Amino acid sequence: MISVEEARQLVMSQVRPCEGEHRLLENAVGRVVIVDIVSPEAYPLSDVSAVDGYAVGTSQGPWTVVGELAAGDTTDIVLGGDDAHRIFTGATVPLGTTAVLMQERCTREGPILIHEGAPFLVGANIRREGESVKAGEIILRKGSVLTPAAIGLLASCGLKDVMVSIEPLISIIRTGGEFIEEGAPKKGRIYSSNDRMLIGALREAGCYTKDEALLAQDEADELRRVLLAAVQAGGVVITTGGASVGDHDLLVPVLKEMNATIHFHGVAQKPGKPMFFATLNGVPIFGLPGNPRAALVLFYEYVLPFLSAMRQRRDPWLRTHHLPLNTALTLKGDRAEFRAARVHDGRVELLADEGSHMLRTLVEADALVYLPATQRAWNAGDPVEVHALPHHRSPQGR
Amino acid sequence: MISVEEARQLVMSQVRPCEGEHRLLENAVGRVVIVDIVSPEAYPLSDVSAVDGYAVGTSQGPWTVVGELAAGDTTDIVLGGDDAHRIFTGATVPLGTTAVLMQERCTREGPILIHEGAPFLVGANIRREGESVKAGEIILRKGSVLTPAAIGLLASCGLKDVMVSIEPLISIIRTGGEFIEEGAPKKGRIYSSNDRMLIGALREAGCYTKDEALLAQDEADELRRVLLAAVQAGGVVITTGGASVGDHDLLVPVLKEMNATIHFHGVAQKPGKPMFFATLNGVPIFGLPGNPRAALVLFYEYVLPFLSAMRQRRDPWLRTHHLPLNTALTLKGDRAEFRAARVHDGRVELLADEGSHMLRTLVEADALVYLPATQRAWNAGDPVEVHALPHHRSPQGR
Repeated sequence: MISVEEARQLVMSQVRPCEGEHRLLENAVGRVVIVDIVSPEAYPLSDVSAVDGYAVGTSQGPWTVVGELAAGDTTDIVLGGDDAHRIFTGATVPLGTTAVLMQERCTREGPILIHEGAPFLVGANIRREGESVKAGEIILRKGSVLTPAAIGLLASCGLKDVMVSIEPLISIIRTGGEFIEEGAPKKGRIYSSNDRMLIGALREAGCYTKDEALLAQDEADELRRVLLAAVQAGGVVITTGGASVGDHDLLVPVLKEMNATIHFHGVAQKPGKPMFFATLNGVPIFGLPGNPRAALVLFYEYVLPFLSAMRQRRDPWLRTHHLPLNTALTLKGDRAEFRAARVHDGRVELLADEGSHMLRTLVEADALVYLPATQRAWNAGDPVEVHALPHHRSPQGR
Repeated sequence: MISVEEARQLVMSQVRPCEGEHRLLENAVGRVVIVDIVSPEAYPLSDVSAVDGYAVGTSQGPWTVVGELAAGDTTDIVLGGDDAHRIFTGATVPLGTTAVLMQERCTREGPILIHEGAPFLVGANIRREGESVKAGEIILRKGSVLTPAAIGLLASCGLKDVMVSIEPLISIIRTGGEFIEEGAPKKGRIYSSNDRMLIGALREAGCYTKDEALLAQDEADELRRVLLAAVQAGGVVITTGGASVGDHDLLVPVLKEMNATIHFHGVAQKPGKPMFFATLNGVPIFGLPGNPRAALVLFYEYVLPFLSAMRQRRDPWLRTHHLPLNTALTLKGDRAEFRAARVHDGRVELLADEGSHMLRTLVEADALVYLPATQRAWNAGDPVEVHALPHHRSPQGR
């Protein structure tokens, strides 16, 4: 059994980056840019007015208003020292402009303009060409996610499309024979939930996945056939169930027979001790336990960061903070633990530990707390490592 | 000019909830459930084993192993006091079971089973029927977002589909004549960015929007025609540009002519003072300024919460924390301010204030800080109100 840190390293050692594609900016929100994005233009493109008001020549006034410029208009007029020009936000200032005066600070009688209040500075309310962005400057670094703000920035600089990672394809395999089937007796069986939960999580992450999981009973021939089909589809394979060491857990033995490389099987963590990670023909295979809570925690802690790394995201791990616990905590055992938590006003509340089988605390959680095997006791106020879950708010509200 | 608090109230007073639709769980991730979700079944459905091991009768052993149960299997055997039954995680325990022993704590010679180590408790490693969820219990409250964990919980309880809000339809209108057009001279003009930025933001939020904004020059007839088309499409309308009081800002006068109700025009805030909010034939119209930074901040602070409320989300506002500033701050003027910020380890770093025209700090931000008009000075360490942006991590990494 290896440590969480070793497991994280082994998983990341098998990342193969996705290819890139050009997409229109508005169709690429949430995607990762895979090259440094260079601005083709300066921003602003010319010296422009920052306000609605009057461009004025070098004198201190009064000035004579000689014309009017809307945003998008330009003029060939060159302002003399006593000339002024009506101008609106974003319009290019005429040659000879010393400053732009805000309309609220001016009085105008016919063509005569007077400035009121404090003296103005040379250059006031003018945004200079290239003040925010110079042509040829890097405006978004390789590995960044294209947020709405990033889309706006790139569009402002004259870009229409962008090179982003394609999204990974994932196949889900559900193993085990204990699931309730339509029309069959329910006795002793359970409803299948991992497949739909993981499909939902993958869709939330923007990945491609089929509408249904591949199903396999706990029989070697069937497992082999389904694994082969998933691996031939390429991308990434996630299996749920069948990763423990029980007599009915055949996945790892079958993968070994198929000449898969088992990078690890068993991690000193709670939940999710029986997790395995393998590759077969270069296709990564995550073996998640059948318990829904364990499966979802391991999805967030290992699979999602792996998929982010495939997408070439610069920091693929869940966003991490160090924040104080609001109560003391002592752990038994020698395994690292991932615990459901809520963060409020910078303090961490651990949610009830239900064992590995239930999802109710994860429904309430907005973060996972990582409690390493090297520490077993915390006082109230001691910092812990907090991994933010990718949905930004618990669905149950604050 | 009204306060931010008044503007927030006026906006929310015009919310009309979206209708509902049934969707398969796996196709409803991120959607809001609009009724309390009641579990049709108990969870677990029967008394099941929590581990791989042996179900044992009432004696303290040794026991005789009389059968084997995989997950999903059941048996009619009733365990006598000295009987044991091989069992796997999730399988229903036979009648007569006192506890389940973990296989790691047992030794077995042929059919004879002996337990090692500390005595076990009655009921150990058995999950009782309905222990986690009782049939008829509310498992997800109305107004919750369907996260992957919630999907897993509902599926575990036997649900396949769920009643969620449909997603709102939004039309974007871009006003103004200052934009660069294909093949036309660029002099004095700017690249259009708000339309694509807002389409990206709406897609990130899961809303329906057309691939392109409706365009309108600053002319009353054209504005009237485009507004009418957008209002007839229903849903929500967002306009950008033309909300100021400059001579070229015709939107509000045109809306008044059309008999729209102008709920407010002008908010004591920075950025975004010229914002307006109107309704026409019951369709809400958000008037955002042309400056991209102001437009995006107001989208997050007003439009997105409004859309969340339409979707019937229980707490529609951006998730709010109170966290300490890492440096002192003094503000001029008497307007409330929204500032781009980054939060790390529970402390707030305000990003450089660039004025309302540029997006570079918003690209780096993971939160907006709301600085109310009633306070103008903060010491380092003083708490401020932090609104988390809906993408969970700045694209530029930690």
